[in-house]
Parts: sequence; structure tokens; C-alpha cells
Amino acid sequence: MEGDLTLRLRIFDLNCWAIRYLSKRRQERIQLIGDMLRREGFDLVLLQEVWSEQDYSDLKAKLGGCYPFSHYFRSGVIGSGLCVFSRFPILDTLLYQYSLNGYPYMLQHGDWFCGKSVGLLGRCWHGGHSHFTPPASHQLHAEYCREKDAYLPHRLVQAWELAQFIRHTSKAADVVLLGGDLNMHPEDVGIRLLRGWTGLRDAFAEAMHFEGCEDGCTLIPNNCFTVKTELLPFPLGIRIDYILYKAISSFTVKCEELKTTTGTAPGMDIPFSDHEAVMATLHIQRQGQAVGATLGTAEPMLANVVMEARTEVGVGLRAAQRQRYSTGRMAVLALLLLLLQAVAALGVLAGLATGQPFPKLSFSLLAFLAIGVLLLSTGLHLFHTIEVKMLQGTEEQMRMALRALQERP
Amino acid sequence: MEGDLTLRLRIFDLNCWAIRYLSKRRQERIQLIGDMLRREGFDLVLLQEVWSEQDYSDLKAKLGGCYPFSHYFRSGVIGSGLCVFSRFPILDTLLYQYSLNGYPYMLQHGDWFCGKSVGLLGRCWHGGHSHFTPPASHQLHAEYCREKDAYLPHRLVQAWELAQFIRHTSKAADVVLLGGDLNMHPEDVGIRLLRGWTGLRDAFAEAMHFEGCEDGCTLIPNNCFTVKTELLPFPLGIRIDYILYKAISSFTVKCEELKTTTGTAPGMDIPFSDHEAVMATLHIQRQGQAVGATLGTAEPMLANVVMEARTEVGVGLRAAQRQRYSTGRMAVLALLLLLLQAVAALGVLAGLATGQPFPKLSFSLLAFLAIGVLLLSTGLHLFHTIEVKMLQGTEEQMRMALRALQERP
Repeated sequence: MEGDLTLRLRIFDLNCWAIRYLSKRRQERIQLIGDMLRREGFDLVLLQEVWSEQDYSDLKAKLGGCYPFSHYFRSGVIGSGLCVFSRFPILDTLLYQYSLNGYPYMLQHGDWFCGKSVGLLGRCWHGGHSHFTPPASHQLHAEYCREKDAYLPHRLVQAWELAQFIRHTSKAADVVLLGGDLNMHPEDVGIRLLRGWTGLRDAFAEAMHFEGCEDGCTLIPNNCFTVKTELLPFPLGIRIDYILYKAISSFTVKCEELKTTTGTAPGMDIPFSDHEAVMATLHIQRQGQAVGATLGTAEPMLANVVMEARTEVGVGLRAAQRQRYSTGRMAVLALLLLLLQAVAALGVLAGLATGQPFPKLSFSLLAFLAIGVLLLSTGLHLFHTIEVKMLQGTEEQMRMALRALQERP
Repeated sequence: MEGDLTLRLRIFDLNCWAIRYLSKRRQERIQLIGDMLRREGFDLVLLQEVWSEQDYSDLKAKLGGCYPFSHYFRSGVIGSGLCVFSRFPILDTLLYQYSLNGYPYMLQHGDWFCGKSVGLLGRCWHGGHSHFTPPASHQLHAEYCREKDAYLPHRLVQAWELAQFIRHTSKAADVVLLGGDLNMHPEDVGIRLLRGWTGLRDAFAEAMHFEGCEDGCTLIPNNCFTVKTELLPFPLGIRIDYILYKAISSFTVKCEELKTTTGTAPGMDIPFSDHEAVMATLHIQRQGQAVGATLGTAEPMLANVVMEARTEVGVGLRAAQRQRYSTGRMAVLALLLLLLQAVAALGVLAGLATGQPFPKLSFSLLAFLAIGVLLLSTGLHLFHTIEVKMLQGTEEQMRMALRALQERP
């Protein structure tokens, strides 16, 4: 009977970098990924940045035989880019969209349009005797400049929301799995917060056997699609794609093996993506007695991490408040200019001024400019108002968490 | 020992209608509400439409003595309006913002700006021996016209997301409580969906003793703040504020008593709000053995409800697709006009046309108009693209739920 209660689970995770018209050799790579997934027969495949639903459909058609169950998470303007293929039935899904995700006017970064989210698969049944839930595939806001990272507060809000989401949805789960591109280095405060607050363990750190890029890096200079200049400070590359896990009730999970791809795909002349794939083999076993849920980090240390994150969120909050103020002031100025123009125009109409004091063309151009500035700055003001609210909300939640941590016996 | 495991929980729920500058006699009513809450000493107070944080702070200052724990949920431009006061510690909160919530350009309805959400209180500890979680306070999109309800698909998406959120976050809870203004009549498909899919029970229907407005109505003609014309088809009023509950693990919950206010507040000349307050006394008891979680409605009936909801979401999806198409077409037309103007202007500059073929003023006015239309229609196109994605996602989830319901033995 003991044998029945043991499960070896092979998980594949990859940021596919499949942006229509922008990503190099996209279709060819999607085909390669599909072929490899069919050949390897994983149990669970978590993909990110599959932005085109057509690519998902192609993969689904190809993989239907060995992965009969799949789901594509829709969100944002472009989509979430998240999809999952599974050997086990997916009975239920839930998408949690982060409340902050960059700025709509940062078109060159585009994160805002993606609706970055965490997708949850509830009750992924295995065989007839057990279930493990929820494996989630997700992606946080990208880091564009490590030295002056304007998105750090947003990414921390996302890491916090992700951690809270996992805590609240996984209470009755046997095993929690989280795979995805977290856009954070292992020692970053966001990762420490996520791991500490959820108790998730890092498959790379726990693996009994590892094979792949040095230090488990998933963005390496050796990959022909990566931007070499961005990796200059990191000669080995960086590790930002993770498979995290924990057992909750009467189960234990061990990571038997972790592998990454190492640039070029085996037997091919190109890599699958600009990221390396992460592949974990987990050994899941049911134990006699339930083990209580635990936090990941010793509590005084965890309190420090939460405090550090809260400080960063506070920095972001003050920046957002400044932007809310300056956009609001800009809107008021534009409104004043418009009113002034209206008064002047009415004066001319009423015959108060003789002749034509302003050239008509510049007068109307100025009015249109003022309207444009008014609309734009009002929009931005609303946006930064939301940003301030969400940052305040997160800071408040973190404060509550700190209090709970400190009051605990 | 049995006595220790019994809890009588008194819950208060009210949509406070406290919109700054708009709601009549707001400050006076907030004071009245505060006085009454302090006098009555409920265990848990769920308030909606407390839009001003100042009002929340005033209430918090007044109620600190009898409700030492409280939380205000921040979201959207204006806020979520949700807050909770509790006799028991609130150790953890989570806010889930619905993915769809009306249209930003429907300024007169304003739902979009509110960031309607469900707020979750995790692990609300009671004494030392048990915990009940998660009581949630929340509000769905308002219904402005029952005959031609353009917001029905959005409200159904919200009802579905709310139900999914409750299912996924309540698995390890002992007792689930949900209180709030659902903006749906008891027989509406959204309520049937929410109750059927979560198994939540309606305190009004289950109450052993009821006292208050006929049929438990919470929006009644007898209240001096309600809009009488809206209630013309319903001489008794309508019931749209609910307290719902269910026991999950080894607990049972019974509703001993349900009360509503009946217009004017006791001993006052005005009501607390345009809504009536709902007050429930729940009797919570721990049983020897765990009871499995159940759905609320017999499964074939539930399948019908999900199918009905899915049809309505499909109607909304097609409307959103039409709007996405027409705003996209408008943007393309505006862009073409701009290009045409640019070509004409270049022609004039290059000296191809002799003289001045267009009056400068109308020419630039037209250009500005085209830019305005282009920006506006692009914005709307993006918005409706998100709407389509979210409706498709919900339809897909409902399809999955239907399949699971039909396949179940």
C-alpha cells in the first residue's frame, strides 16, 4: 500500500519568450518546445510568455496525446502568457491578477499590458487516491535596470500578493507547487519574502542531484538570444526562473533531481528560448501523521525580511504620492489655462475687446493642447491614485504581518 | 467541555451609502451608526460604501473600545469602501479585485472607479480554542436598469470570481461567512450561482426567528433615502444585502435569528443608510467528526444554473467583441484621416499644390479632432480587449465546471 502513496512528479518550467513579431525564430522554437515536451513526457508543464493564443493552440494540438489536460489563462490586453499542460485532470482554475504591474505609459516595457498574474490549478487529481494542489505558473514584473530599479516596489507588491494568495489558497492542499519566471535573483528581498512568508522551498537549493548551468542560472550569456550587455555584471548569468514547492498536510516532498537546459537545445542549433528551462523531479510521499504548516524562515529573520520589504514599498509609496501630486497639479494648471481662454473668448464674443486680440489658429491650437494635457494628466492622476492606494494597502498588510510575527509566542 | 466549543456570533452588515459630498446627511448617519454599533456590541461588523477614509478613522476612534480590531480595504481610485470591525483579532487580510467592474466612461455610474472587491479576513481568532475564517465583506456591480441590464455579464463574472475565490480560500476554514451588498435579488442567476457553487446558505432563508422588513427586504420604499421610482415595480422593496454562511470541517452553523432595520433608525428621525442593515445571530458548534464539503445545490440543478450564467456571459462576450471591433475601426479611421492630412500638408509644403487649399484653422482643428478620436478609441479598444479576454476566461472556467459537474459519478 505504501508504494501506492508515493508519486514521482516530473515538472517542466520555461519562460518561452514567444512574443509575436518581436521574438526571434518564435514559431520554430515553439515547434521545438512541443517536440521535446512530447518526447520527454513530463507530468506537468508550466509555460510563461506564450502571448499568442495561436501558439497555445498549436502546442495543445501537438501535445493532446501525452498531456490530455491543459489551460490557458486569459488576462490583460495581450493576455497573461501563462499556460499549463498536464497529464492529470485540471478540475478548477483561478486567476489572480496583481493589483500593480508597472505603468501603461512605459510602452517600451509593456508589462502593464500583459496583466501579469498567478494562475492557480485547483485539485489536479492524480490517479484515484490523492490530489496535489495548487501548481501555479506565473511571472512577476520584469527588472529593466538593477541599479535604479523603478519597478522594485511593484514587484514587491506582486511578491507579497503572490505569497498571500498562496497562503490563503493552499491551506487544504497536500502539496503546493509554484513554477515560473519570478524576475528576481535568489538573494533579492522579494524572493526571501515569498519563500519566508509561504514556507516554499527552492528546488535548486534542495535538489539531491543537479545538472545544468552553473549556479542554476536561467539567463546565461551562452544563450544566443540573451542581451549580452545586460548580463555583463554577471559572467555566469542570473537565476530568475524557479520551481518552488512545499508539502502541507500529511505529505513530504523531496527534490530528487533538478536540471536546466544549457543554452542550445539538445541536438539543435538554437535554444528553446532566451531563458533556460527548469526541470525538477519531485518525490512526493504520504506520511502517517499530519505535519503542521510552517513558515519558511525563522521568525525573527522573517520579521527582518518583511520590514525590509515594507521599507522598499514605503519608498515606492512616496514616489507614487509625488507623481500623484505633480500630475494633479498639471491637470489643474491645464484647466486654469482653458478657463482663461474661455473667458478671453467670451470677452471677444461679447465685444469687450475690439478687433481680434489673438490669432485664431494659435488660440485654438493652445486650447487643444490644454485639453490634451488636461485629459492626459487626469488619467495619470487617477492611475497614480490607484497606485498609492495599493501601495498603502500592501504596507498596511505588511505592518499587520509584522505585528503578528512579533506577538507570536 | 462541550460548552466551550459553542459560539454565538452576532454579525452586523450594512451598506453605509457614505459618499462624500453626494450622500445626504452622511456625517450625521456615520455618527449614528457608530453610536449604535458601540451600544449593541456585535462580534463582527461588515460595512460597505464607507468611501472616505476619514469616516473610517472616525468610526475606528469611536469603536476602538468594543471592537479593538478593524481593517479598511484599499483599492481602485476611490477605494473599495469595505471595512470590518471585529471583537476578535484579525491576523491576516487579502483583497481580491474583480477583473471586470463596469466601464470607466460610464461616469454617472462610477462603479469602475470604486475597484469593487471582496475583502477576506483570514484566521479571525476566537478565544483560544478555535478559529473561524474567512468572513468577507464585499459588494458587486450595481444594477441600474433591471429590464435592460447592461452590467449583468460583469456582475456574473464577479459572482463567479467571488464563488471561486471563496472555494479556493476556504478549504481549511471552519466556518465561512460572507456579508455584503450583492446587488442581486435572491432569485437572480448570480445569487443562485454563488450559493450553488460555494454551498453558502442564506441566513434569511435559514433563520429560526426573523424580525424586520417583509421578505427581508433591504432596499424599501419606506426609507426616506431610497429612490422611490426605482422601487415602483417592487412595492415591498427588494432584498440585495445578504449574510451567507457555511460550516466546512467539523463545525455546524445555525442561524438563530435574523433582523433588519425597518427604515428609520430606532429612536431617530433618519435611517442609518439608504439600505437596511442586516443582523444575524449564528450558533456555531463543533461536532465530533468532520463533515465533507458539499455543493449548495443538487448537481443537475447546479449544472443548469452554471449553464444559464454561461449563456449570459456569452451574451456579454459578443457585445464586448462588437464594441472592441467598432472602437478598433474608429481608431483606424482616425489614423487614416490623420495620414491623409499629413500627406496633404506635405504636398502643400513641397509646393505641389498652389496657394492654400484648406483654411489653416479648420485644417488644424480637424487634425486635433482626429488625434482626440484616435487616442480615445484606442483607449476604449484596449479596454474592450481586456473585457473580451476576461469574459472568455470566465466562460472557459464555467465550461470546465460544467464538465466536472457532468462527469462526476
